[in-house]
Parts: sequence; C-alpha cells; structure tokens
Amino acid sequence: MRRILICFGYKGTGYAGYQKQPGKNTIQEKLENAIQSVTKEKITVFASGRTDAGVHAIKQYAHFDTQSRIKTEKIVEALNTFLPQDIRVFSAKEVDENFNARFNAKKKTYIYVFSTQQVLNPLFYDMATELKYKLDFDKVEQAMNMLKGEHNFKAFCSSGSSVENFERTIFDFSLQKQGDYLVFKVTGNGFLYNMVRIMIGTIVDVGRGKLELDNIQKMFETGERKYGGKTVSANGLYLYDVEYL
Amino acid sequence: MRRILICFGYKGTGYAGYQKQPGKNTIQEKLENAIQSVTKEKITVFASGRTDAGVHAIKQYAHFDTQSRIKTEKIVEALNTFLPQDIRVFSAKEVDENFNARFNAKKKTYIYVFSTQQVLNPLFYDMATELKYKLDFDKVEQAMNMLKGEHNFKAFCSSGSSVENFERTIFDFSLQKQGDYLVFKVTGNGFLYNMVRIMIGTIVDVGRGKLELDNIQKMFETGERKYGGKTVSANGLYLYDVEYL
Repeated sequence: MRRILICFGYKGTGYAGYQKQPGKNTIQEKLENAIQSVTKEKITVFASGRTDAGVHAIKQYAHFDTQSRIKTEKIVEALNTFLPQDIRVFSAKEVDENFNARFNAKKKTYIYVFSTQQVLNPLFYDMATELKYKLDFDKVEQAMNMLKGEHNFKAFCSSGSSVENFERTIFDFSLQKQGDYLVFKVTGNGFLYNMVRIMIGTIVDVGRGKLELDNIQKMFETGERKYGGKTVSANGLYLYDVEYL
Repeated sequence: MRRILICFGYKGTGYAGYQKQPGKNTIQEKLENAIQSVTKEKITVFASGRTDAGVHAIKQYAHFDTQSRIKTEKIVEALNTFLPQDIRVFSAKEVDENFNARFNAKKKTYIYVFSTQQVLNPLFYDMATELKYKLDFDKVEQAMNMLKGEHNFKAFCSSGSSVENFERTIFDFSLQKQGDYLVFKVTGNGFLYNMVRIMIGTIVDVGRGKLELDNIQKMFETGERKYGGKTVSANGLYLYDVEYL
C-alpha cells in the first residue's frame, strides 16, 4: 500500500463545490473517478478541505491510498488523461502512511479578486467580482490588521456549519492592486464555513464607510454575524495554497 | 432613426459562435434579445464579422438602428442589465446612417494564445491552447514575415466558405512571450474562414520542424490546403480589435 499526495487545481465554475454530493457535479467525484480509472481500485480521496460551489483552486492537495503498481511519476499524466480540462493534477508524490492532507495542513492561503473596471471583463466574469465602490484604503488596512491574530471567528461563519471551536489564527492579510484588480490575500491556520467571504465582505463595507471598524471588534466580542458585511460572491475566491509541515 | 455602434466583448466558450443559428446559443441572439428588451423594437445587429464557436472577443463591434428614445449614454448599462455576464457592452455611440460595422472595418486584429506550461492552468483551460513542442523562433519569425503582405490565402481557408476573392493583406504579424504564454498577434484587412487558425497551425508546424518554410510558398502558389499545418483549436483565439476609418 502506498499513500499518494497530489497537488491539483481547478476552475470551480461548473461544480457544486469540492465535496461529493449525490447527483451533483463535484471536484471530488471527478477526481475519484479518474483515480479509479487509473488504479482500477475503489478509492476515496481526502483533500486539505472542501471549497464551495464556484470557488477556484490554484493549488489544492489531497491524499489517497493505492495498491496499484503504477509508478508515482506516471500518476500526473495518467490522471490528467481522465480528468476534465478544468481540473488538472500538477504533481504527485508518495508520502508516509500517517500523512493526512487534511490534518497535516498547517496554513492555508486564499486570494479574493475584485475588478474595479467600469464594466467587468466578460472573459473573467466567473473569476472576479465587480467592485463598484471607492474604498478608503487606510480603513481597509486597519480592518485587515484587526483580523490578524488569534480570535473567535464565530461571527464570521455562516450557519449550517457543525464545528464547535471557532478559534482561528490569521497569520497574514494583505491587499495588492494589480491594474484594474484588487487582490486580497489571507493566510490562516484554517477557515470556518464562508469565513473568507464574510471577512472580505466586512472589510469592503468598512472601506466604503457602510460599517465602522468597531463592527469587527463587536463581531469578535458577541460572535454575532449581524454586525458584519455581506458574504461576497464565490466567483472571486481562490484557494491559493496549503502549507504542510 | 438613429444608428448606434456598440463595442462589446465576450467569452465564446458557451456559444455556437457569433452568428445566429436556429436552435443554437449564439452571441448575436443574446445581443438582439437584449437590444429588443431595451428598445421594445424588433431589430437586427450587424457585427464587424462572425467568430466561430469557442472564439472569444476582447473588442467586437456591431451596429443597429433604433427609433427608441433611450439616450445613447444609457445604452451600455441598459444592455448589460439584459445580457449574460459572459457578454458585456463597453461603449455605445451614435454613428452616421451610412456607417456599417462590417463594411467600414478597415483592419482587424486577432491574438492567439498558447500555453507552454507542463500542465495547462485549469483556470484558463478554455482560453489558451497547450503547446507541447519546442519552437525554433527564427523560423517562426520567418514564417510570420512570409505571411505579411498581400497574398492569395485560398490555401489558408477551410472549405465551406462561399467567398470568391481570396486576396487578403496582412499588415502585421508578431509574437510575444508573456511568462508561460506565447501570444501571436496578427492584423489584416480581413480574414477568410479559419484563416487565422490555419496560419497559426502552419507557423507552429514550421517552428517545430514538421513543415518547411517552403510550404508557405507552395500554399500561396497552389492554393492547396494540404501543404499547411492543422487548424489550431478555437480556445486560444481572440478577436482583439477592429479599426474603422
């Protein structure tokens, strides 16, 4: 038995999200089907975490166990033969049988892309979110700084999640202007359900003056979602990378 | 009656091409439906030319006539309200009633995008074509130079076209390396059916040593398609701009 860790990416547009759901088009199902076609075994893949419908991944990771004799260096090409073009495996390596793509993930980074163009480029209609407001970048900076560190992020979590521990640590939060695009980048030890999209929505609302910086403090203190900004669209969100120890 | 010229762009992926066809999803149909929703008139749009299934447009142009009293400066926003997100109108202006988006087009520019990455980025699976070969860029340059000027491009035209005059002029043909991407850019007074895709396919085959530069000469002399390279995929092709006098 070998445990294989793959690094892969996908365009989330056509999918109901990463995680397998009966009767729905998911990344996990496509991945498992491709692995089964290659190994001729019934297998389950375990990813670093799920991503929601419409969310993209620049680098996502998953492990699976196989008894197949396919050489590890042949796995990338073999899987890509069976995968749809909007899912691609970039690399595969053998890992220790105790390695777990989910539990060994130490840091995750997401990016969120806004377009500030007058009219959103139709080529990127599903890869960026239109931003119609002028932002006060000092306030945006302050909002990002407030979110950094270890906090109880219960107020930044959509209902429907079954987690009980809302403590998360944000290591880094930054904003880069790239031409007509604003790219937020956030690194943490983990993220709650919709947490990135609620943080970004809250930062934008603070930046445009609809919310006060104080709202973030209130969210930490009360754990109440109602003090935050809206959950921004999935289109602009990308899982950027996962760091393992 | 006012004649309106609009500049618009689209992602061709989900469409059977620009031109209206019964029972098919086309850009023209979406555009006409949107204009009808805004003007409440039955109208026809006339574009600079058609693009094939899967071909994108960064800037495409079309005109239509309307008796509606909507202000010209309100047209962009109104149309975008009714258009799907993968088609966007960027600008609209009133033009002389003799202006014709097709016949007044003096120059058209297309770009063609290849990816030279080991594995094509799944985010761009429908926006670039994989190139697996190493190219001799001197030969590519020479091939582009041979194509410049006025020639009979019959050999660079797919069958199924009804045109009788195959004389076209290529004003400019260039190649830019942008990171992992190769971007060909070609400007001409007009292009035959599949002409850009056959030119690019032929240039690539010359660049990788599968065809000789002499093949291009033979194509001009005989008008025979068989001496050329294959028709490259629509995914990498973009109508880049149209120039009017």
